[in-house]
Amino acid sequence: VNLRIPGPTPCPPDVLAAMSRPMVDHRGPETAEILARVAPKLKAAFQTENDVLLVTTSGTGGLESAVVNTLSPGDAVLAVSIGNFGERFSGIATAYGADVTKLKFENGAAADPTKVRAALAERPGTRAVLITHNETSTGVTNPLADLAATVRAEAPDALILVDAVSSLSSIPVKTDAWDLDVVVSGSQKGWMLPPGLAFVAISARAWQANETARMPRYYFDLKKHKQALDTGSTPWTPALSLFFGLDVALELLEAEGWEQIYARHQHCADLTRQGVKRLGLELLADERYASNTVTAVKAPPGLDVSRLRKTLRERHNVVVGGGQADLSGKIFRIGHLGLVQEEDIRETLAALAEALPVAGYQPAAAAV
Amino acid sequence: VNLRIPGPTPCPPDVLAAMSRPMVDHRGPETAEILARVAPKLKAAFQTENDVLLVTTSGTGGLESAVVNTLSPGDAVLAVSIGNFGERFSGIATAYGADVTKLKFENGAAADPTKVRAALAERPGTRAVLITHNETSTGVTNPLADLAATVRAEAPDALILVDAVSSLSSIPVKTDAWDLDVVVSGSQKGWMLPPGLAFVAISARAWQANETARMPRYYFDLKKHKQALDTGSTPWTPALSLFFGLDVALELLEAEGWEQIYARHQHCADLTRQGVKRLGLELLADERYASNTVTAVKAPPGLDVSRLRKTLRERHNVVVGGGQADLSGKIFRIGHLGLVQEEDIRETLAALAEALPVAGYQPAAAAV
Repeated sequence: VNLRIPGPTPCPPDVLAAMSRPMVDHRGPETAEILARVAPKLKAAFQTENDVLLVTTSGTGGLESAVVNTLSPGDAVLAVSIGNFGERFSGIATAYGADVTKLKFENGAAADPTKVRAALAERPGTRAVLITHNETSTGVTNPLADLAATVRAEAPDALILVDAVSSLSSIPVKTDAWDLDVVVSGSQKGWMLPPGLAFVAISARAWQANETARMPRYYFDLKKHKQALDTGSTPWTPALSLFFGLDVALELLEAEGWEQIYARHQHCADLTRQGVKRLGLELLADERYASNTVTAVKAPPGLDVSRLRKTLRERHNVVVGGGQADLSGKIFRIGHLGLVQEEDIRETLAALAEALPVAGYQPAAAAV
Repeated sequence: VNLRIPGPTPCPPDVLAAMSRPMVDHRGPETAEILARVAPKLKAAFQTENDVLLVTTSGTGGLESAVVNTLSPGDAVLAVSIGNFGERFSGIATAYGADVTKLKFENGAAADPTKVRAALAERPGTRAVLITHNETSTGVTNPLADLAATVRAEAPDALILVDAVSSLSSIPVKTDAWDLDVVVSGSQKGWMLPPGLAFVAISARAWQANETARMPRYYFDLKKHKQALDTGSTPWTPALSLFFGLDVALELLEAEGWEQIYARHQHCADLTRQGVKRLGLELLADERYASNTVTAVKAPPGLDVSRLRKTLRERHNVVVGGGQADLSGKIFRIGHLGLVQEEDIRETLAALAEALPVAGYQPAAAAV
């Protein structure tokens, strides 16, 4: 199967093999050794000297940990939303009682730093800004460096909380250089691992905020995670199989090299975008901000998206994603992150060229 | 390695093999089919007609979900604690603002229904009672049927929230017959799976409480889990590898049969208790309530527990647990749950007989 959804992503055979390793004592030396090996590699991936914590949860739980460890009920929060995952991040802050102002951009657009600056100027005392780096639902990568610089200039003390679930490890995230406070990623994306682990980097500014943050937390208490990590452990029983897999995946990623990985993602994304356009289709994303991990394609008049996905799956062994929430039926999404090579994209485009007519749309030309 | 800690437990080869299955679309038919297969088997294991939800988290996260989905800040809660995990359950309720009264029993004792009745009588309006079924830290199984009947008699409307993390699937839990409201178990215990999944059964009474429960929640919002499960899905990306493993593990458990599984645990526990006593050692647990999943053994004068564990691990390939919190250095714990047979216990006892003198204690007699 050519699994071309924006996560879970295919895993290398060595990672899958590691997932079936027998259990060990989660408080014993094997676990401590894995944590000692992966901790510096995670820091390198996050381009940070900050702690990167491992939490047994999905990306959503990682986002929740970012919010509840740094904020108090009533805190003014600016939620920059460019799609479904921006809505989710905002929803988490609202659920825990933050005073959330949402700055929403239309589907396919990136966040505009000028509007972020204006929103912050209107609202002095903003405690945190929530930013989705890569919006999986629309295939847009926000200009995170610019957005972060804008926040630092306009609201120097505000925390910058970043959803980098589907970007980090595939698209560069310069945690320290961009002065980001909490950065969250998820195992089932570019990391080439199954789902179930979130990685959370925390700055000194965020730890300081943690001292007075009053949102309730227990399982997601990152201070407990930090204290445990410092002694080669975890506060609660972790998903050990994913630790085994991570140990292998990080070796593979480092062997390829981060710059090469970013270049490979850029190349596969370029191929995908060119291919779908050659088929006469349009991207949902503003092309200046089109994502290197997922391409959202607008359904042209006549195309039945669910029939397209079913045809691709059943006749071509290619699995693509549908649209989420208000985009359901209006787009389909091709994931190109993690374990992905040029041939996977060529196979996907060839299958698309054959499946589109079955689903009601005659492509403009051969895509491949 | 003979992994004899009270979780993570050894996994059968077929379960480990399933853990390395390639990824699938978590919103696709494969995932829906697995959920359809496991849902009725989980209900059978929980002896319930209630929904049993699957949450990607450790047992601690499962306990948090029980609290935050049914209670509001300020609610009067009676936390019945007989050890470290009772303290944890109580700590979760406190962290989320419940008005917690703790009824604490000494290490090794079970909770006394008479004292629970008195505590409830003193405190009319108690909204929930937190009960640990099997206290992993002390090797005690509470008389859950009696405790639940006591709560129902004294406080008919109180919710009964049960930590069955290390009992359910190894020791009978009659969720419906005992009228339990939220029952939580964890994958790395008797289920013969790696850690990372919690199973949460919810009664109609608990769903009713959910309607007005105001503790904040997002990732652990069980209503979202229920709505998703009803459509063969999950609200957030789940730990798919554990779903694959669970599918296989439940088949193996049903093939053996629940009554036979409970009898096997009883037998292995009896062997363990007899064996350690023959060595001249004492159980921490009141023997009337000694657990069938874990045996806590008091360290006699002269015994260096960490040396004992190191010797067992390095010379005998047997891994046992230490004591937690205030019991650190004072006990060691032998896990006998999940994938365990008589020979595993005999091997453990033989290793103990050899390792105890190395660690400062001369056993009374041959254990085997």
